[in-house]
Amino acid sequence: MKKVHLRRIPSFLRLSKKKQGDAPGSLTHVGEQKVGSVSLSLWSYNETACDQSSPESPSDARQQMQNDRVHWLNIVGLHNIELVRSIGEEFGLHSLLLEDVLNTGQRPKIEEYDDCLFVVVKMLHDNPEIAGDVRIEQLSMVLKDNLLITFQEQPNDDFTVIRDRIKTCKGRLRLAGADYLCYRLLDTITDGYFAALQQYGDDIENIEDRTLTATDDSFISSVYVLRRQMLFLRKAVAPMRDVVGQLEKAESDMIDNDNIPFFRDVYDHAVQAIDAVDTYRDLLSTMLDNHLSIVSHKTNTVMKVLTVMASIFIPLTFIVGVYGMNFRYMPELQWTWGYPAVWGVMASLTIGMLLFFRKKGWL
Amino acid sequence: MKKVHLRRIPSFLRLSKKKQGDAPGSLTHVGEQKVGSVSLSLWSYNETACDQSSPESPSDARQQMQNDRVHWLNIVGLHNIELVRSIGEEFGLHSLLLEDVLNTGQRPKIEEYDDCLFVVVKMLHDNPEIAGDVRIEQLSMVLKDNLLITFQEQPNDDFTVIRDRIKTCKGRLRLAGADYLCYRLLDTITDGYFAALQQYGDDIENIEDRTLTATDDSFISSVYVLRRQMLFLRKAVAPMRDVVGQLEKAESDMIDNDNIPFFRDVYDHAVQAIDAVDTYRDLLSTMLDNHLSIVSHKTNTVMKVLTVMASIFIPLTFIVGVYGMNFRYMPELQWTWGYPAVWGVMASLTIGMLLFFRKKGWL
Amino acid sequence: MKKVHLRRIPSFLRLSKKKQGDAPGSLTHVGEQKVGSVSLSLWSYNETACDQSSPESPSDARQQMQNDRVHWLNIVGLHNIELVRSIGEEFGLHSLLLEDVLNTGQRPKIEEYDDCLFVVVKMLHDNPEIAGDVRIEQLSMVLKDNLLITFQEQPNDDFTVIRDRIKTCKGRLRLAGADYLCYRLLDTITDGYFAALQQYGDDIENIEDRTLTATDDSFISSVYVLRRQMLFLRKAVAPMRDVVGQLEKAESDMIDNDNIPFFRDVYDHAVQAIDAVDTYRDLLSTMLDNHLSIVSHKTNTVMKVLTVMASIFIPLTFIVGVYGMNFRYMPELQWTWGYPAVWGVMASLTIGMLLFFRKKGWL
Amino acid sequence: MKKVHLRRIPSFLRLSKKKQGDAPGSLTHVGEQKVGSVSLSLWSYNETACDQSSPESPSDARQQMQNDRVHWLNIVGLHNIELVRSIGEEFGLHSLLLEDVLNTGQRPKIEEYDDCLFVVVKMLHDNPEIAGDVRIEQLSMVLKDNLLITFQEQPNDDFTVIRDRIKTCKGRLRLAGADYLCYRLLDTITDGYFAALQQYGDDIENIEDRTLTATDDSFISSVYVLRRQMLFLRKAVAPMRDVVGQLEKAESDMIDNDNIPFFRDVYDHAVQAIDAVDTYRDLLSTMLDNHLSIVSHKTNTVMKVLTVMASIFIPLTFIVGVYGMNFRYMPELQWTWGYPAVWGVMASLTIGMLLFFRKKGWL
Amino acid sequence: MKKVHLRRIPSFLRLSKKKQGDAPGSLTHVGEQKVGSVSLSLWSYNETACDQSSPESPSDARQQMQNDRVHWLNIVGLHNIELVRSIGEEFGLHSLLLEDVLNTGQRPKIEEYDDCLFVVVKMLHDNPEIAGDVRIEQLSMVLKDNLLITFQEQPNDDFTVIRDRIKTCKGRLRLAGADYLCYRLLDTITDGYFAALQQYGDDIENIEDRTLTATDDSFISSVYVLRRQMLFLRKAVAPMRDVVGQLEKAESDMIDNDNIPFFRDVYDHAVQAIDAVDTYRDLLSTMLDNHLSIVSHKTNTVMKVLTVMASIFIPLTFIVGVYGMNFRYMPELQWTWGYPAVWGVMASLTIGMLLFFRKKGWL
Repeated sequence: MKKVHLRRIPSFLRLSKKKQGDAPGSLTHVGEQKVGSVSLSLWSYNETACDQSSPESPSDARQQMQNDRVHWLNIVGLHNIELVRSIGEEFGLHSLLLEDVLNTGQRPKIEEYDDCLFVVVKMLHDNPEIAGDVRIEQLSMVLKDNLLITFQEQPNDDFTVIRDRIKTCKGRLRLAGADYLCYRLLDTITDGYFAALQQYGDDIENIEDRTLTATDDSFISSVYVLRRQMLFLRKAVAPMRDVVGQLEKAESDMIDNDNIPFFRDVYDHAVQAIDAVDTYRDLLSTMLDNHLSIVSHKTNTVMKVLTVMASIFIPLTFIVGVYGMNFRYMPELQWTWGYPAVWGVMASLTIGMLLFFRKKGWL
Repeated sequence: MKKVHLRRIPSFLRLSKKKQGDAPGSLTHVGEQKVGSVSLSLWSYNETACDQSSPESPSDARQQMQNDRVHWLNIVGLHNIELVRSIGEEFGLHSLLLEDVLNTGQRPKIEEYDDCLFVVVKMLHDNPEIAGDVRIEQLSMVLKDNLLITFQEQPNDDFTVIRDRIKTCKGRLRLAGADYLCYRLLDTITDGYFAALQQYGDDIENIEDRTLTATDDSFISSVYVLRRQMLFLRKAVAPMRDVVGQLEKAESDMIDNDNIPFFRDVYDHAVQAIDAVDTYRDLLSTMLDNHLSIVSHKTNTVMKVLTVMASIFIPLTFIVGVYGMNFRYMPELQWTWGYPAVWGVMASLTIGMLLFFRKKGWL
Repeated sequence: MKKVHLRRIPSFLRLSKKKQGDAPGSLTHVGEQKVGSVSLSLWSYNETACDQSSPESPSDARQQMQNDRVHWLNIVGLHNIELVRSIGEEFGLHSLLLEDVLNTGQRPKIEEYDDCLFVVVKMLHDNPEIAGDVRIEQLSMVLKDNLLITFQEQPNDDFTVIRDRIKTCKGRLRLAGADYLCYRLLDTITDGYFAALQQYGDDIENIEDRTLTATDDSFISSVYVLRRQMLFLRKAVAPMRDVVGQLEKAESDMIDNDNIPFFRDVYDHAVQAIDAVDTYRDLLSTMLDNHLSIVSHKTNTVMKVLTVMASIFIPLTFIVGVYGMNFRYMPELQWTWGYPAVWGVMASLTIGMLLFFRKKGWL
Repeated sequence: MKKVHLRRIPSFLRLSKKKQGDAPGSLTHVGEQKVGSVSLSLWSYNETACDQSSPESPSDARQQMQNDRVHWLNIVGLHNIELVRSIGEEFGLHSLLLEDVLNTGQRPKIEEYDDCLFVVVKMLHDNPEIAGDVRIEQLSMVLKDNLLITFQEQPNDDFTVIRDRIKTCKGRLRLAGADYLCYRLLDTITDGYFAALQQYGDDIENIEDRTLTATDDSFISSVYVLRRQMLFLRKAVAPMRDVVGQLEKAESDMIDNDNIPFFRDVYDHAVQAIDAVDTYRDLLSTMLDNHLSIVSHKTNTVMKVLTVMASIFIPLTFIVGVYGMNFRYMPELQWTWGYPAVWGVMASLTIGMLLFFRKKGWL
Repeated sequence: MKKVHLRRIPSFLRLSKKKQGDAPGSLTHVGEQKVGSVSLSLWSYNETACDQSSPESPSDARQQMQNDRVHWLNIVGLHNIELVRSIGEEFGLHSLLLEDVLNTGQRPKIEEYDDCLFVVVKMLHDNPEIAGDVRIEQLSMVLKDNLLITFQEQPNDDFTVIRDRIKTCKGRLRLAGADYLCYRLLDTITDGYFAALQQYGDDIENIEDRTLTATDDSFISSVYVLRRQMLFLRKAVAPMRDVVGQLEKAESDMIDNDNIPFFRDVYDHAVQAIDAVDTYRDLLSTMLDNHLSIVSHKTNTVMKVLTVMASIFIPLTFIVGVYGMNFRYMPELQWTWGYPAVWGVMASLTIGMLLFFRKKGWL
């Protein structure tokens, strides 16, 4: 267990503070700047063709869009507010939507606007710098007819597989609309949840093996770190269920009915992830209970036996103290058999106490 | 209590990791290979006839099917991906359905497709290798008009009774459709839950008997193992209620109205099983509470009595120490009655302290 | 508190195991045989007449039934499977219904069949053999037009009052239909809940009185036995609410609208019983908390005071030990005022430590 | 904190036992007789007139009622069963309603009968005999067109204000119907809840002040008494929300639409009262947690420091014991520097141990 | 951590006691008087114009209102009952609404009257007197066509930004109606929640850093203070979700459909705030658990090692005591090798015990 995991409360639970009373239209980037410069990339494809470009501006991207294709405009980096604003203007996005895109402290959610669907989710993926660490990153998606706009905080290897598939494969991905692309991204994200949870499952099993043997407080600390993680993870994963659940219910025109089973599949995965988080949480507290009970049991045993031992020697020490006194007139001291007699008395006393303790079940 | 039970977190809570970003159509077997080679068996029956065969391929199976019969195609073993794919093609099953069949880490669920009903449930049955152990296995069922396709991880004796009944009995099973066969399988599975829970009930009663007498930490460990089991069991059994509940509500055309009472019966059993798991869970924590309270009470008693004893001897030992000092001028030492006087003082002190402790209620 | 109460997990939570895979129609009696031979009794009454008989067979009972009367057929004892089967045939009861009647490990429930209403409830009544013990018994009722069939595990004095009323009184009971009779039985059963809960309330108050004075672990054990009971009782009583709630909602044609207020009254009683069980449960854990806190506080006090005492004598004993050493050259021993000086030092030390402990608040 | 508060489990949670199997029409008074003789009082008023009388019988009361007035018939004392029965006959009340009126162990509830609305609530008010004690009393109300019948267990000063207002004020109370009067009574009752809860809030704040300083177990006992109260209070107050909530939803013709906002106001108060009870309950357990943590921390500190002290003297005492031995040949004893050398050894040992303990952080 | 935070239970959970039985129309100010004199200010604006004035009376304010403008009438200070009454009369507000305005112990709520919408919320903002303290203040809003009336307990800097925007900006705020102004106030209030929660988040992280190092009980106290705060905060923030949720659902004619997304945004923020409070609460108890486990582990270690040490010296001290006895005939004392032999015995004993303890795992 590395103690570096999620050292701080994650940002979406820290509640980033924008300036109080600011107008909703006033865009500000809330969060860490995780990438040097903002980059745009545009994928346009249909059954027969597939182009990738890096447009210089939103209007440039717009001009490259042809009607008979599906477009995926991916923006990496969020600190260029002007760019986000111009994307909003170019594609007619609500100012509140843009505000939410820029604030990386969002709770996962889905919002239906008149002409588009806005989805915010949390991605979990490995931290390349610290082995075994998990980073939480925000992905915002705008789904609009044949266009999907995604906003990432930083470049993300997880989506490389999907990009490769768009390029090479001629399957459903190239035939279906932007909603199917949206599903594929969500599916990749829940796969990421599974990977993270699998790792936590390994950690938990490792810790469990140490329940009986751990002698320092590292067991307690490891359990604490993991309980803490589960607390945060639940808040990141649980709203995902509602988000995908709403997509699956096909309430929006943006989602093709043929694609509903796919969203239902993602929904199942989200439910499974929540189930796992809950089980891990319960398992961790049961494990801690168990460890504390065993430790306390062990300490009790030590204390009891040692206390019994002390209790036997205390009266004996008193007796030898008595005959160490220097009174002039102590008749016992003069007896020839005095010394053996004292040993006899002490032996009887010891045996008597041992029998008494055993009878009481204290030994 | 064998500590081997469910040594690891069960697979459906471990979240098996398929390759992130893989397309939904890409079938991969997730789980342990539990059987040497995959085998197919086909049962075709109606009121008057009943045939059993082992078709070599799905298309072979298909050709053997006659319209006026009910068919049960059972596949044992899931690692032959090609076979599963060809079953999917032969019977027109959705690629997501096939993916779920192959992934043994599913949560119990029910899904309605256009022309079929897909049900995933968990079976509990005895582990023949370890007495008293319980294995969790996945069963996938596809219900389609007069055809029921079942996918098992390994051969399962539990269904032998049903196979015998198809062969011999001319009752409802031979008269009714594939939905009734589906009910019989579900009923057999909940019977398996009952058997497992009954065994856990016995274990709990045995442990309870040791609440007062257990002196080592085996009580704590046994309770922990069972609490852990209940945690996993609940996650396996609880979704079953929703699965059968949905079948019972007769929302699907696949289920004949006359068979609804039977599904309701399975539903009742699922609810009863959940009730039992919950009760066992609560009972186990109440038992642990009780054991810890009693152990702590016992330790307190030992410590208190022994501490009181020590406290009586401590001042006495001090007194005899005083008269063991070697000062030249210690008048008491020269007194004729010095020695008896010291005994008198010590006796009074002891009696005084005993009275004081008794008054305070510490004895 | 008698420790004999509910020594074992009650049967409806133990999940009786019928043979796995058995057909639904295969009737088997699950449960204890509580009575020697099965007996039938038939009450037929209307406003003007009232007859009681003990028919020899179900068909005999059927022939005695006249159209213008209300009939109550009561079967005591469930182990005669043939009899139950012939009742089912005579009155057209579903095979699943009969299976449920025979399995005394049912959860309270209500089921609506095409032509009848099937209700299973749990009765609580005094155990005549052990004073203060409570037995849980199953009662199954089939309500069918002007006929009520009840299945009891053993003869039950609780219903004697109702039988007397049918005989003597000419009130509503004789005027109204079988649904009103059904209400009267349910009402009598909830009265039994009240009686049992009242007794538990007395037990709890008695235990509460011992919170402060209990010195052995009998308090802990008594609380445990009662918490355990409440756990089981809740599972027996809680489904009753849903059962009567469904009757009260008048969704069934079997229930006359004029009788709805009566079922609502039973519903209120069931809710009150659940309220009481919940309160008792919370009260018991609060009481246990309180007891453990007080015991721990008392032990702390003892330990602290005694430890302080020991701590004062330990340095003193060291000092007297120093002057008990036999070194040839120990100048202090030769001083005339050596002995009083040591007393002085020890007195100062004692006073100093007492002041220090008092200042620290340890005394 | 007076320990007398709610010494016993309140009657509505004790489940008063009527005779099992009794017919619903058989009226019996369940509860304590709190008043000498039953008294009736009738208020009749409209915009212009207002009369008060003490009718001798229900039929007398009925005759005094004029159509153009609102009537409030108040019955104080419930043990005169005949009177209650004749009220029922005079005003056409259902026998179950009368049974509920007479049973003071009701749970707060609302019931709609064909021609009237029946409401049972719990009143909390000061116990004049014990300062700071709270009594729970049952009030039953029957609302019927322009008539409100109320049944109290004993005379209640809380309603004096309302009586005065009817007499003197010409405001809404005189203009509006019986439903508004019903609201005024309910409002007065929730005011009583607020008063009681305010007092408990004071008690809690007082106890909280003693968290750090309490040295005996009075803190624990006070918290226990209050937690117990909150348990009972919640059961008395919580159903009130549903009762008023149902009135507020205007489902009944008895309630004038113009008066809905008033009932909504009472609803808000009930919700606030429940909120307060819940907060107090959580606060009390948090307080107890905190107190126990602090006490345990304090004890730990004492024990640790004293144990360390003991541990330092134990080896020293051993050393001086060594040189108190009387062996003939102990060379050290003859050395001139033996005595100072022992002191030196002991000093070094002490310093070494202190350093070791400090390094380990045990000091 | 300052211990001054929320020293007392906040007023809306203390349940201020108005005179029991008072009529609903009888206005009384319940709460602290926080400002010297009550002041009115009126903002009237539309797209082209914007005026601010301080009307002397409600009727004065009314006369200044022009039909084509949006009006914001802000009242600071609530103790002038006459003024509130005259506002009520001037603008036709229900007497219950006015009563709620004056009672600062309200629970956040929304109420729909025939011609207006009444909203009560809690504001959290910094206490200028005590750094890091958070005050809870009540804001009541009445939304009526193009008029928004707000009642504050004291002047509030938080709204200055909005006032500035009305004056200077010509954006949506000047174009939209009073409902949009209402949204802006609610948005500012949730921003205040975020600020407060961010501060608590900092506090929690600071405390968490001290989990391992805290040696006094300040850790426990700090956690207690924060848990207490979270308890109160949840009750202040949670109802806010329902309030805004109801606004967002557009059930009222008062809210323009175009403004719904804005209220949905506030709703999201309220949900996020509740999420944070819940997470903080869970985190705090997990932290306390962890701290107590670690402290207890540390104490156990100290106690165990020291007890072992004592146990080794106790028999040694007994042995040296034996040879300090003054019996005339103690043959060992005369032996030439007696003294070294005793040392040898003691050394062996010590080594034996150390080995035994190590084997038992107690060392």
